[in-house]
Amino acid sequence: MDFFLIINILGVVAFSISGVLSSMKKKMDPLGILIIAFVASVGGGTLRDLLIDAPVEWMRDLIYVHVVIVTTIFAIIFRKKLVHLRKSIFLFDTIGIGLYTVIGVEKGLSAEFSPIICIAIGTITACFGGVLRDILCNEIPLLFKTKEIYAIACILGGGTYFLLQYFQLSQELIFIVSGSVVIITRSLAVYFDIRLPSVYINSDE
Amino acid sequence: MDFFLIINILGVVAFSISGVLSSMKKKMDPLGILIIAFVASVGGGTLRDLLIDAPVEWMRDLIYVHVVIVTTIFAIIFRKKLVHLRKSIFLFDTIGIGLYTVIGVEKGLSAEFSPIICIAIGTITACFGGVLRDILCNEIPLLFKTKEIYAIACILGGGTYFLLQYFQLSQELIFIVSGSVVIITRSLAVYFDIRLPSVYINSDE
Amino acid sequence: MDFFLIINILGVVAFSISGVLSSMKKKMDPLGILIIAFVASVGGGTLRDLLIDAPVEWMRDLIYVHVVIVTTIFAIIFRKKLVHLRKSIFLFDTIGIGLYTVIGVEKGLSAEFSPIICIAIGTITACFGGVLRDILCNEIPLLFKTKEIYAIACILGGGTYFLLQYFQLSQELIFIVSGSVVIITRSLAVYFDIRLPSVYINSDE
Repeated sequence: MDFFLIINILGVVAFSISGVLSSMKKKMDPLGILIIAFVASVGGGTLRDLLIDAPVEWMRDLIYVHVVIVTTIFAIIFRKKLVHLRKSIFLFDTIGIGLYTVIGVEKGLSAEFSPIICIAIGTITACFGGVLRDILCNEIPLLFKTKEIYAIACILGGGTYFLLQYFQLSQELIFIVSGSVVIITRSLAVYFDIRLPSVYINSDE
Repeated sequence: MDFFLIINILGVVAFSISGVLSSMKKKMDPLGILIIAFVASVGGGTLRDLLIDAPVEWMRDLIYVHVVIVTTIFAIIFRKKLVHLRKSIFLFDTIGIGLYTVIGVEKGLSAEFSPIICIAIGTITACFGGVLRDILCNEIPLLFKTKEIYAIACILGGGTYFLLQYFQLSQELIFIVSGSVVIITRSLAVYFDIRLPSVYINSDE
Repeated sequence: MDFFLIINILGVVAFSISGVLSSMKKKMDPLGILIIAFVASVGGGTLRDLLIDAPVEWMRDLIYVHVVIVTTIFAIIFRKKLVHLRKSIFLFDTIGIGLYTVIGVEKGLSAEFSPIICIAIGTITACFGGVLRDILCNEIPLLFKTKEIYAIACILGGGTYFLLQYFQLSQELIFIVSGSVVIITRSLAVYFDIRLPSVYINSDE
């Protein structure tokens, strides 16, 4: 089992748990929760694979399906423990977007897209599982609310990836540093309550 | 006209009618109703074809477009008759998911996916037309409400398909039995009011 | 820079501005506005490219990304000027669907789809950027409300395209006339307040 796959599975676990926890608020049945956990964890990667015309990963490699099912069952059983761990939920979600961003950037690179498109692909991989989850739950996607630094952390992480390529660093190190930039940016932004200002027009004007 | 195509068209008719009937509640114009009927009847298959990287069926074979248009026109003209037929609507919808599940499983098999993925493909084919319809109408997809056994009927039908392959039965028989399992499971669940229990966490805890 | 590309860029500018203006009402941050502008302007074309299994245009040709970014920045800076230009917003949106319809029809033709499917592809290209924008903002897509002639203008424009092919006209002329049919149809319909009648069933009946 290589480095890339382990990282990918950690991301699936992280997003499945955040998916289970948000869908349980909607009083769904276990199968509904499983589907939402599944969409949250592989939705971004699926959209990425469709866009870059690659085979959809979870359809060829059963490990993703198994990890989502096992994680969902554990998360449902231990839900009363999990609900007291709000900070852990945030942590899982943040680690997830960090991992997925860099996975997406690398997938884009291997399909020979230009850096700006690779960063977009990384951001889509990281953010659209959550967007699809929110659409399915009929909510305005969290991504578009100005409550949190989210997509911009992915963009900074993706930019770091291409910056680091100028130095002769190992692939693993670039991966870890770029992912950490995403995780640290979002964590600091939440801790210090930093947000982008909202821009709006008064529709009554 | 082969067996497979006839079954497919019956599914399109069933889903178009259920699409027309649910969109008419939203006071749409005839074109809006047609688009919703179209998405409801070919949306699940389109998502399936994108995921397994097959050509999208309705774009190459005009019969689907014609069937949706003719069915929609008839359903609009005879809407006053149809509205008294709530049970028929349920019947059409149920037959539709039964047919689409098995069609999806077979498409997955012919693209050489593993059984668990084929069952997922069948369930997506059957359920996501309705999910897309509900998203377009800005409602929480019916699929995720705990009101009815729905996706689990598809999963049982898909499982039956693979179980029956161990016996030396004809393709048509396996098709009919698996589809019937979906239809009967859902019908019995509605008749006896059987549901999966909802799992939730008290968000105020 | 050929004729096709210039027209395409004008469409991106038109839809980006309409995307910025509608997303600013939701008090999003600049990045959220950029993403909505992006989805509004390339979403229809992306869905089209996925359906016809063509490479997604904006991922290979960076000009689209650049145009959306520059347009969004300008639209945000000059938002106070833009808000007084409600008629211009309508104009931009209408020009956008006119251009996109014909671009979609031509893409469908070059992939050798039948005329009715090409018209559907043109309508999807023109309308689904707006549909995706509305779904992301958690609103019922404008397309399905009976307030305005919208999709039917695209269908008429697409039909005009195939009608004009019987006469020996230049490609550019067919393009301009068909696109104008879309723009004029929608403008006249709004000016004279022409709508399709809504069809509905009384759900209490």
